[in-house]
Amino acid sequence: METILLKNGTVVTQNEQREVLRSNVLVEGNTIASVGNDASADTVIDCTGCIIIPGFIQTHVHLIQTLFRSQADDLSLLDWLTKRIYLLEAAHSASSVYWSALLTCAEMIQGGTTTVVDMGTVHHADQSFSALSRSGMRGYSGKMLMDIHDSAPDELIESPHKALSESRHLLKEWHGGNDGLLSYLFAPRFALSCSEELLSSIVELATREGTLIHTHAAENQDEVAMVRERTGMGNVEYLSSLGLLSPRLLLAHCIWVNTREVALLQRYQTTVLHCPIANLKLASGIAPVPRFLERGINVSLGSDGAACNNTIDMFNEMRFAALLHKVHSFDPTVIPAQTTLDMATINGACAIGMEGKLGVIRPGALADIAVVDPRESHMMPFSDPVSALVYAARASDVVLTMVNGSILFDGQLCHLDEARIIEETIVQRDEVLGRMPEE
Amino acid sequence: METILLKNGTVVTQNEQREVLRSNVLVEGNTIASVGNDASADTVIDCTGCIIIPGFIQTHVHLIQTLFRSQADDLSLLDWLTKRIYLLEAAHSASSVYWSALLTCAEMIQGGTTTVVDMGTVHHADQSFSALSRSGMRGYSGKMLMDIHDSAPDELIESPHKALSESRHLLKEWHGGNDGLLSYLFAPRFALSCSEELLSSIVELATREGTLIHTHAAENQDEVAMVRERTGMGNVEYLSSLGLLSPRLLLAHCIWVNTREVALLQRYQTTVLHCPIANLKLASGIAPVPRFLERGINVSLGSDGAACNNTIDMFNEMRFAALLHKVHSFDPTVIPAQTTLDMATINGACAIGMEGKLGVIRPGALADIAVVDPRESHMMPFSDPVSALVYAARASDVVLTMVNGSILFDGQLCHLDEARIIEETIVQRDEVLGRMPEE
Repeated sequence: METILLKNGTVVTQNEQREVLRSNVLVEGNTIASVGNDASADTVIDCTGCIIIPGFIQTHVHLIQTLFRSQADDLSLLDWLTKRIYLLEAAHSASSVYWSALLTCAEMIQGGTTTVVDMGTVHHADQSFSALSRSGMRGYSGKMLMDIHDSAPDELIESPHKALSESRHLLKEWHGGNDGLLSYLFAPRFALSCSEELLSSIVELATREGTLIHTHAAENQDEVAMVRERTGMGNVEYLSSLGLLSPRLLLAHCIWVNTREVALLQRYQTTVLHCPIANLKLASGIAPVPRFLERGINVSLGSDGAACNNTIDMFNEMRFAALLHKVHSFDPTVIPAQTTLDMATINGACAIGMEGKLGVIRPGALADIAVVDPRESHMMPFSDPVSALVYAARASDVVLTMVNGSILFDGQLCHLDEARIIEETIVQRDEVLGRMPEE
Repeated sequence: METILLKNGTVVTQNEQREVLRSNVLVEGNTIASVGNDASADTVIDCTGCIIIPGFIQTHVHLIQTLFRSQADDLSLLDWLTKRIYLLEAAHSASSVYWSALLTCAEMIQGGTTTVVDMGTVHHADQSFSALSRSGMRGYSGKMLMDIHDSAPDELIESPHKALSESRHLLKEWHGGNDGLLSYLFAPRFALSCSEELLSSIVELATREGTLIHTHAAENQDEVAMVRERTGMGNVEYLSSLGLLSPRLLLAHCIWVNTREVALLQRYQTTVLHCPIANLKLASGIAPVPRFLERGINVSLGSDGAACNNTIDMFNEMRFAALLHKVHSFDPTVIPAQTTLDMATINGACAIGMEGKLGVIRPGALADIAVVDPRESHMMPFSDPVSALVYAARASDVVLTMVNGSILFDGQLCHLDEARIIEETIVQRDEVLGRMPEE
């Protein structure tokens, strides 16, 4: 088995004791073999002066929206969704989905993200898997499910039967693919775009197949009001009433939740996917993250879509997550740096049922690792590497990204042609815009 | 006179019409000679595919606090100030001030900042000027003035006579220095650390000398309550009662201001220095920036100190400024990208009385320019360069920084040795920590 030694770095292990060690990390095949003594290896990478961390886990991303970066800024939410995002998504082709996803992977890999949980696409979901597979990242994706119009165009709406039959087909084709790096998940868009019939069938299927469910809830006050009008319940309560809440449910946003709903999230050990930048950009609100954490609810991070962020960058997300709740609570001690890094790593692993295998550097864990070089004027001088990562580092400080023991980035993307990806995405973006209906 | 042509870029002019031109920028000596046709020049720099912008103007920075990066995270404000910052500042030496300032300059130059307004230092203020001079940046600095203990250590407190006599001496030595790149300003720390006698004398002196005054106000609710207890007035009202408010006053924060105080800021055309990241990190509050802008109050941006940020990075500051007020107003259309870029450029120029000469790319303006390369996966595809700068770019995308017609950064710092600066700041930081009193 091939071995790689990351030699003489500052290892932010994210283990139970949150140890930070001046140490060496030996990778054998796709696994971390040891953290400790120097060792011989097929490849030795000098990490002197650098910080070695578990790769970031982005738990809420729309891979297909990266093509729409800067196409939907400074708009009211209704205009953003109905005049831009829905129409742009409906205008996607197989190629445009593929290149959008691959561009996102390129950005994430360069920024130290090793696992992504995608919100999927109604059409061409196979193309997202193809791109993930091509990129070498660890990825969770699925067909986005919508069977109620709400304000979405016809092209995005399918019958539950069609939607679920295609889902089953995709699951069979991709779940466990690319040497286990790919996983299928069920991705109902949100309560308002899914019938009870569809949501109930998803619960049944996901339980039978042992897969994750990934959806949005309580992002926006109007959304919550409409769910209440339709169902008489809060958004999370409603999902709970249909049996969706469980440790296998990943629930993006959860901004507008009442006390009962917080208790439900806690009781069912459902993970909240916190997307601070998107929540600010769309003026959705501020999720009660300190309250979630106090109650032991697992909270992980996501960049959501490039159309509402506009980067897919865990360093940006960590900075906002760490800072936003301080002012919102009028308490500068909430969400300290360590808690923030936990949300970007361990909590993400916990969200996808990979606690102990991902988000941590310890013997036996999968070798998903990033190396950050802090020897730059914007990070120096520093004493605490965790503070430096959360409050000062940026994606361009990542010098190496490894997924499953393979080096995907070492200053350059090792297996992807960035210039070609950029070129293709510009072409695809223009074609998508050309297919948009006239206003 | 030496000429430099920035050839074939996308020029975000920031002129009155906010024109964005595919064009060439000709620099003659320290001035922008033309924006338009191709021209011959001593040096031609190909900017194809790049965005050419006015250099950023950082209007509220503590140069001496960069040495304390990551030394004061996740602390309550009182602990932050009295147990860390005051003591660290009191432990500064001439050398540590110099290297802290020079490190900040290195970080700023690499990130496209061309002008900095510093909050100064009680002791060794000449060292900040020396570092600014060495760096080639345009800089406004001064001796920090404090004559009331409040909770500060003895070492930082001086009599008004001593403080002002040293100020006059520094003004004479540095104002207009380094070919006009340096300017002196008066820098009373804040209302609680300055006597009325001191503040009144500052107004008199600054008026006579035609210099700026730079101070903090209404950053924190407790601070405002204490000012009210002492003076019976709001913080801005109090400063106004002493005659401080004028277009030459730069007032950092202004978070906790009442309606009368907003009217005062408007009436006296005083600039508010908005520091969103520091305000979040210290949990101070959210300044009513949309309200200021509606009233025509000039608002510019600053990163404050690396001990409460932790970077001095205008891209980070712009992103927070653009996003924070959207959620705070529940309106995603407030502080759009263009307004944000204005705060980072034109409004900064206006703050220091350099409107039309800085913060804009037009013939006759001073040649303070940054070039940003957006051809990276985290910015692509994009259509609107202003959106790309505010919502997606990061400091590492800057490929060239020019101040007063001199290129200070072209991928490398041209006149500064970054490795040496980092090495020296680590030594100086350790020496400062060694001089700290035991807890």
